[in-house]
Parts: sequence; structure tokens; C-alpha cells
Amino acid sequence: MKGKRLLMIPGPIEFTDEVLAEMSLPTLSHVDPQFIEEFGQAIEKMRKVWLAPNGQPFAVAGSGTLAMELAAANITEPGDNVLIVHTGYFSDRMADIFRLHGANVDIVPSEVGDLPSVEVVRAALTIKKYKILSITHVDTSTGVRADVKNLAAAAHETGTLVVVDGVCAVAGEELRMEEWGVDIALTASQKAVGVPPGLALLVASSRAIDAFKARKSPVRAYYCDWQYWLPVMEAYEARKAAYFGTPPVNLVRALNVSLGQILSEGMDARFARHAKNARAFRAGLTAMGVKFVPAREEIYANTLTAVWYPEGIDASVLGYIAAEGAVLAGGLHPAIKTKYFRIGHMGMSDASEILATLGAIERGFARAGYRFSPGSAVAAAQAVLAKG
Amino acid sequence: MKGKRLLMIPGPIEFTDEVLAEMSLPTLSHVDPQFIEEFGQAIEKMRKVWLAPNGQPFAVAGSGTLAMELAAANITEPGDNVLIVHTGYFSDRMADIFRLHGANVDIVPSEVGDLPSVEVVRAALTIKKYKILSITHVDTSTGVRADVKNLAAAAHETGTLVVVDGVCAVAGEELRMEEWGVDIALTASQKAVGVPPGLALLVASSRAIDAFKARKSPVRAYYCDWQYWLPVMEAYEARKAAYFGTPPVNLVRALNVSLGQILSEGMDARFARHAKNARAFRAGLTAMGVKFVPAREEIYANTLTAVWYPEGIDASVLGYIAAEGAVLAGGLHPAIKTKYFRIGHMGMSDASEILATLGAIERGFARAGYRFSPGSAVAAAQAVLAKG
Repeated sequence: MKGKRLLMIPGPIEFTDEVLAEMSLPTLSHVDPQFIEEFGQAIEKMRKVWLAPNGQPFAVAGSGTLAMELAAANITEPGDNVLIVHTGYFSDRMADIFRLHGANVDIVPSEVGDLPSVEVVRAALTIKKYKILSITHVDTSTGVRADVKNLAAAAHETGTLVVVDGVCAVAGEELRMEEWGVDIALTASQKAVGVPPGLALLVASSRAIDAFKARKSPVRAYYCDWQYWLPVMEAYEARKAAYFGTPPVNLVRALNVSLGQILSEGMDARFARHAKNARAFRAGLTAMGVKFVPAREEIYANTLTAVWYPEGIDASVLGYIAAEGAVLAGGLHPAIKTKYFRIGHMGMSDASEILATLGAIERGFARAGYRFSPGSAVAAAQAVLAKG
Repeated sequence: MKGKRLLMIPGPIEFTDEVLAEMSLPTLSHVDPQFIEEFGQAIEKMRKVWLAPNGQPFAVAGSGTLAMELAAANITEPGDNVLIVHTGYFSDRMADIFRLHGANVDIVPSEVGDLPSVEVVRAALTIKKYKILSITHVDTSTGVRADVKNLAAAAHETGTLVVVDGVCAVAGEELRMEEWGVDIALTASQKAVGVPPGLALLVASSRAIDAFKARKSPVRAYYCDWQYWLPVMEAYEARKAAYFGTPPVNLVRALNVSLGQILSEGMDARFARHAKNARAFRAGLTAMGVKFVPAREEIYANTLTAVWYPEGIDASVLGYIAAEGAVLAGGLHPAIKTKYFRIGHMGMSDASEILATLGAIERGFARAGYRFSPGSAVAAAQAVLAKG
């Protein structure tokens, strides 16, 4: 539609009409039976989307950063050892949050655009007794994806809890929380979960809940404290009202609708679609001759793609691309901020959106003076998309 | 309209069509120039609604409880003395939050449905050097309203900072933040500010910001820390993008519209309308022979009314009243929870809503077997409303 711009950033993403419609319904009381039912359903659906049949979901008004603190604050006590798999800006933030809550934080380092191997992390886990291994599933700053399955397996060898910052991953990247033994997986609503920003979401394993219940010191952040939120989540799931803070009613109802749409597609199909869409994007971009920020193909994320500006092109190209119909994101990682851009492809993105976005990228790059064969990106993407 | 139920609880309230329409607009990027402009406008309008021309607004994804912690966490350091004016459930919560952040908390006590006098608080302030006086402007649990103006004046005599929990007050009860010398006034979006739940809002005075900047110890809660939010608020007001957490775009846009509606009415007119609406409600309820929870007329809130169930009536009457068209709230204060109910009358409530609500209350009470003269409540309210 003329004037329409696709929002192809790593969150907020394009939301479905059904989700947006929920947002403007007259707000129900937080103790209205209809809202209690819908919140209860949303909690149940979170378990299915996270593939954590015995997990404890939490949905709290806040941003993804609150979700990170909701995870760290409740299972960390002063003096606990925490090991961080370094992936970029957001693993650094997770380290800061763990430190604030009293942890001794060690970081397994990596270069920008890379992350340490599973073997290196496994070795690091044996240096001392770590209570928690923290993994950023997809670092939104670099488009680097961690091998959560095998990192979690390594952590189990030393009885270490596994926290996954899944802000740019949950409901897009494959995550089998219970099968893989992840103890907390967190995200924010405006990413692959497909709900406007304002909800911090996480699911905790029974091991994580046990660690919380065994605490000897109080949680340091009041609004983060599971002692207040756990009874509320349990009550709504049992279709009863409970109060700690007023839930963000409109967002919770939108969450319930979006999770329903996600489950209608099915998690396996959804993971496969995200992987295929990402391959199509990369095929198109590669055909234009650009390179990706992540160091190796095995660590390319399926939810976003981080791309180096080619020679002679800078962030001004994003304005051209937006004018051509697709809003992309600039760099975020401080070390390389002006040298790359990011494309989000999460949620309900389909072949039409991918072609439209690559088309806008082609025309934007052409306006910026970049030389390439027009149509090469959309053709290469189409070749991937057309495969069954 | 048949089947329509007015939501007359102390938040969430009835929102305007214009505010609800903002909620379902396709979400803009948080760095989109249009969103930057609207967030900047909302920040400027907060200053006008709070009557704090030199205040620093903060708008963060979260509930009112987060707003309470955003206030307490940033100006409290371990060992600080904090004095709490006791009003009910929410002053107790504020005390808990201050304690968690290291304060030595003293409470000026009161009976349920009452609060200590200004003279008693003034005397208490001289017992030791208090850094902060915490006042719940309207305690949502009891409908008790504090005399913020004179309590703040008493605090100034001892150089004490004044924190006002205005969750059930800001944009409804008279609050002249700067003139009265209030240092932090906080609220939640779903109350008199008129935006669906999910935004924690506060304005801080320059004295509060100075106290924050003079801290010697770190803020204990990461997501609450003004060191991250202050640059973001300053940037958006300067019409620049900045990132800490993704702002709840749809809610912020709704906030901008609602604050515009509030300022179109004008703060003096808005305070007067809330006071008149409250008088009309009380006149109607008094005509039915019921009594109010707050102990004295001077402390009746203008944003909600807490009412004792009369002899022979219990919480089941709320179901009848809802069926008759008005959703009210049950009790909240633990000591009297089953003995009273609450009516919210904040935001854009007008004479039609008041009469409709009182009509539903009359019919509900009649169905519950309460004896009174039918029509007496609406007639008494109408007598108040009809006065110029």
C-alpha cells in the first residue's frame, strides 16, 4: 500500500491485525472473569511456546531489560558465581545485572561478531563451581546465535543452572526449554512473540523455582521479586484473581491472541519458517555482495541479520531504504556502531515481506550509489523461498 | 448501550475513544521521528499536568508499584531515615520498598480509614533527621486523602525531601508539585491519567535529581536506575533517540493523547470536576443511608469513594451492580477487606456516568434486599451536579 513502511527491525516488529485489535478493546478490570480467563490461557500457552510443560511462566509489565533482571535477581545471592557466554552488548548487560545482584561474574570472552565455543565454555565451567551459566540466545547487537542446546548440556555436567536471554529468540529460534534443560528463558513481547512492547516474559524451571525458594537473602529489587509475582501467576492460571500490581490488561489480552496464533502454526513449523526466511534474506544480501557481522555461518541468527555496510555506503542508506518502504535498524554494538545495520525478520514474516524488504534494500542501496545487479537480491531470495 | 458496563473501579478506568485508538495503531519503531516527537511531547505535557515546570518526567514500562520503586530506589541510600505518613495498604507497601533499599523507616501511625494530622507529622519530623517524608496522596485501599500541601510545608521546615505516591491522585486530585515543594510525584497510567495499564510515571524535582546525583552507593535495582533512564528522557525531550529499554510505544502514544485531553480541560477545571463528581457520589450514597470508610469529610478522596456495606449486605451486591451496568471494586485493605467496597471516579467521568453508576448501585442494592427509597441516590447526586 502506498506510503506503508514495513517495520523490519529487531523489535518492535510487524504485529498481526488481530493482535493490534486487542490493544484498543475497552480495558477490562483486572479481576473481570473474562480477563482472568484470558490471562490464565496466556500463561498456559507460554508453556507450550517455550516447550516447557512443567515450567512456571511470568508475564509482568516492563521491557526486556526487566525480564533480564526478573531472571537474575531471583536466583542470584551475594557471592554466587555466574559465568557469562560473551556474545555482545546484551551479554555485557546481563553481566552488569548479575553483578548488581551480588554475583561474582566471570566472562568467557569473544571477539565482536563471535562467541566462545561450547568446548571453551565447558572448560571454563570446571574452573570453579558456577551456580549459573548465562547465555544470550541471539545477541540483538550482533546477530550472533548461541548453541543453547549444547551449552546447556555442558552446564548440566557441573550442575549449573542455565539462564537464556531469549529476547531476540523465543518463538523464533528453536528453543526446547525442558528437553534441553534450560532453567530460565526470558524475552520481551515486541520480539518474535508478536505483541507491542511493554511485557517482560519468562518461564522458570522447577530447579529455578527451587533455587529461588532456597534463598537465604532477600531479592534486592522489589518489583522483580518472585515472592510477589508467583502467587499472582498461580492464581490467574487457576482462574482466580490476585493482586500485586495491576496487570497491563490490553497487552496481556494481545499476548493471549498472539500466542494462540503462534501455536496454530506449531512450534516446529515456526522454527523452520524463521530459518528459511533467514536463509532467503542472506541469499539475497549475499547476491548483492555484502557481508555479515557474525563470524561464521553456524552462528547466524534466524531472527535478525546484521550486515556490514559495503565500501562507500554508510548509515544514510537506511533513510533511502525507509523511503523505499522498509524501516531497518542501525548498529548498536558500541565497537562497530556506525559500520553495520540490522534487519529483523521475526514473527509472522512471510515471503511477500521478505521480497518487499529486499526490494527496498536494493533500491535504497542503488540510490546510495552502490553498484550491483538490480534484481539480484530478490531473485536469490526467491530461489530459496520457492523451495518446498 | 445494552450490555455495556461502566468500569468504575479505582483503575483501570474508562478510557476515551481517542486514547484507545492510539493503542491499536501499527507500532512505530522507537527511533522513528514521529515517535520521538510524540514521546518528547508527552514528556513536556507531564510537566504541565504535574504543575512542575522545572521537574524531570520519567515514563517507563511497568505498573504503579514500579513507579513507587523508581522513586524510592533512586534517592534512598543505606541508613537514610524515611518517615511514612500511614494511610493504609499502599503506605505500608511504600515502607516495604524504602526498607528494601536500605532505609530506616519510621511510620506515623493511624487507624484504618484515617491518617495522622499534619501537626503530628510535623512533630515526628523533629525526632531525628529524616531525609525523606513519604505521603500516599490517596490511599486506594481506603479512599483516604492526605493534605499534601501542608504535609510538604512541614517537611520543608526540616529540609526533608517529599515523595508523593499519587497513584490514585495525579491528574485528579489537586497537586501543585512545584508550588507545594513536592520532590517526587508518581502514578500509574491506568488511573486519572487515563491510559491503559502498563506505564509507570513520575516527575522528580531538581532537589530529587540532586539527591540522586549525590549518591555514594549504587541503586540496587537495575531496571529502576535513573542513571539509565535520565539520558533517555532527556534525549527524547530534545527530539533525539536514545536506548536503554524499548519504550512501550503504543502506550506512550496513548499517553501523549490523554495528556493532551487533560490539558485541554485545564488542571484547575479538572480538579474542580473531580471534586464535584465526588460530592455528587457521596450525596447519592448518603441519601441511600450508607457510610464511608474515611473517618472525616476533610479526608474524603475525590478520585474514589470507599463505602461500608450496610447491615445485611455483603460483597455479593457487587455482582448485582455489575449486572445492572457498573463494575465496582471490592475491599482491598486486609483488616476490613470483606466489609466495604470501592467506586472509582477518575478521568473523564461526567454527570451521565455518575447517574448511570448510582442508578446501577440503587438497583443492585434493591436486588440484594436493601431497603431505601428508590431514586433517592440519583436525585441527590443530580442536585449536586445541577449546581453551576
